[in-house]
Amino acid sequence: MHPWIAKRTEHVDSSGIRKVFDLAAKLANPINLSIGQPDFAVPDEIKQAAIQAINDDHNGYSLTQGVPALRERLQAEVDARYGHDDRRVLVTSGTSGALVLALMAMVDPGDEVICFDPYFVMYPALAGMVGGKVVKVDTYPDFHIDLAKVEAAITPRTKAILFNTPANPTGALATADEARGLAELAAKHNVAIISDEIYRQFCYDGDLVSPASYNDQTIVVDGFSKTYGVTGWRLGFMHGPTEVIEKMTMLQQYTFVCAPQPLQWSMLAAMDVDMQPYIDTYRHRRDLLVNGLRDTGYEVAQPGGAFYVFPKAPWGTGSEFVAEAIARELLIIPGNIFSGRDTHFRISYAATEETIERGLEVLRDLAKR
Amino acid sequence: MHPWIAKRTEHVDSSGIRKVFDLAAKLANPINLSIGQPDFAVPDEIKQAAIQAINDDHNGYSLTQGVPALRERLQAEVDARYGHDDRRVLVTSGTSGALVLALMAMVDPGDEVICFDPYFVMYPALAGMVGGKVVKVDTYPDFHIDLAKVEAAITPRTKAILFNTPANPTGALATADEARGLAELAAKHNVAIISDEIYRQFCYDGDLVSPASYNDQTIVVDGFSKTYGVTGWRLGFMHGPTEVIEKMTMLQQYTFVCAPQPLQWSMLAAMDVDMQPYIDTYRHRRDLLVNGLRDTGYEVAQPGGAFYVFPKAPWGTGSEFVAEAIARELLIIPGNIFSGRDTHFRISYAATEETIERGLEVLRDLAKR
Repeated sequence: MHPWIAKRTEHVDSSGIRKVFDLAAKLANPINLSIGQPDFAVPDEIKQAAIQAINDDHNGYSLTQGVPALRERLQAEVDARYGHDDRRVLVTSGTSGALVLALMAMVDPGDEVICFDPYFVMYPALAGMVGGKVVKVDTYPDFHIDLAKVEAAITPRTKAILFNTPANPTGALATADEARGLAELAAKHNVAIISDEIYRQFCYDGDLVSPASYNDQTIVVDGFSKTYGVTGWRLGFMHGPTEVIEKMTMLQQYTFVCAPQPLQWSMLAAMDVDMQPYIDTYRHRRDLLVNGLRDTGYEVAQPGGAFYVFPKAPWGTGSEFVAEAIARELLIIPGNIFSGRDTHFRISYAATEETIERGLEVLRDLAKR
Repeated sequence: MHPWIAKRTEHVDSSGIRKVFDLAAKLANPINLSIGQPDFAVPDEIKQAAIQAINDDHNGYSLTQGVPALRERLQAEVDARYGHDDRRVLVTSGTSGALVLALMAMVDPGDEVICFDPYFVMYPALAGMVGGKVVKVDTYPDFHIDLAKVEAAITPRTKAILFNTPANPTGALATADEARGLAELAAKHNVAIISDEIYRQFCYDGDLVSPASYNDQTIVVDGFSKTYGVTGWRLGFMHGPTEVIEKMTMLQQYTFVCAPQPLQWSMLAAMDVDMQPYIDTYRHRRDLLVNGLRDTGYEVAQPGGAFYVFPKAPWGTGSEFVAEAIARELLIIPGNIFSGRDTHFRISYAATEETIERGLEVLRDLAKR
């Protein structure tokens, strides 16, 4: 290894996902059910607002905390939702930007960070990068939270619980009881909850209930990227106790500087766009996929949100099963990318119905093996 | 302090700059010579290219290493300039994004990072945030590099030299001899040079000579933000030895994810825009400001680039002098923001001639005190 490489880079390794995409690159016309972003085009009103901002010369740095008009609108919405005395909004460079800031601002080397397994790939990597020790709490087979396990995992070194609902890769939507239980547990032990709610809008059987509803110290990470199909615009936001958010704001000043200014402006227009028809389409696709899988005998925990399903491989390890799927031009992701276990696989339904049907056909065939 | 705040946040403190801006916020019509970004509007061809990319639905994630067409074009340009066998380009989220990646990828806790004093504010903050120990090498009074001082500062723990030319806040442009000397010194001691060349295009008396011309392991940080007036678009790039750049690419995947995709596309158009007329305007302003200051008796080291002048305060400390300037509605930045010394102040000439003339008038008056 090059002698200049720092030790913290050990925590980032894209070899797993890269292997899948390297295999995929050889396919002429894959059935792609691996995508982690919406497949719809950005609604025209949002495009037009971004274009307007560019033409209006909103192209320099914005305040690091965000364009005031956007931040004020988000702040009003957050205040209306939670009514906390001390909750401050910060516009960030995507949800991952918010996660980076949260971990940098709070996790000292040796601090423990609780993640639920399966987890979003970034969580253990980011926690490790800042010197944190990742403590995994298992949620198989239904991907719901066992509070007794969480409490057992808390030690005097626990700094934060990284929570994600609706979840990537499982699609699991935490119940209000889970959110409240977690919130109360965190308050009892004075541990931070970082609640990643990037898929907030993608809930199909009832709204997301945030731990912030029960614990006013919750750090909520939220975003625009998935909701409006603008993952490449690098726009997110977060909110939490003022003192913590202020530290993150200072860290942002020295790292991300600000979210892209003209694109920030367009989010004011985005907040007036009704995305419900898009969500309804995704609900329909979820049902199509989940029902199709169950009819074939796949073991599937019910996903209440996001746009992923995380079934158990019917034979072999998750990786073995996925290798066979890719050999048949079906692109899905092995579960061990998101987990200590290699038993499941992730299917994304951010794809057309036709693609989902083609994928189901291959999966039906594969199940028979 | 909130019990969740991590120790590394000690290294970011915006109180100095904030004090200036708080004072400034009270002014109705300040003479603003404090700005760190170009004052020209983004050229229309570039705006149109960004708009086209938005309309063409280039709005999702790009590859973390950058939109292929842009990266290939940058790679060809870099290859033509240096002809190194092993030099890889990475598109980043601004120059600060590149600096964050470079320090995260290379600096382990306890490693030493050499900075030249005066330095860009971000350098010691970022080096400290990743656990590095900042070693400052003085460059007063002419802001050129004394290689003997640099060599004396190198220890077995030295990991990197953070170099910036043309420099913020001094405007100093390193000579080819300085670049070569530094390059050879770094090679001799197997220390990384991180060469921040964000102001590359803003050179008035001859082109920038990079240490990369003499040391093929140099990590070059470059950008589009200042050149095209798109500081709010969060676009930069860097290049260096493949193995090091690959680690940074992986770190980027987990932090910044990618630079804003539609704006990346516009940089292809930007690279065909002739910015020379803008540079000529800035040269003229530099001469106006430097001559005006010298005529009044200010001690000014000749700035060969960027858009800053860093004169010595004619009386008092830099902070005292700046407080008095701000009392007279002239907005400039005290030198102690950028230095261990409090003797100088920074003037930006990213402003109209009329504003510069108004500023000079106040400075003439202040010098008499």
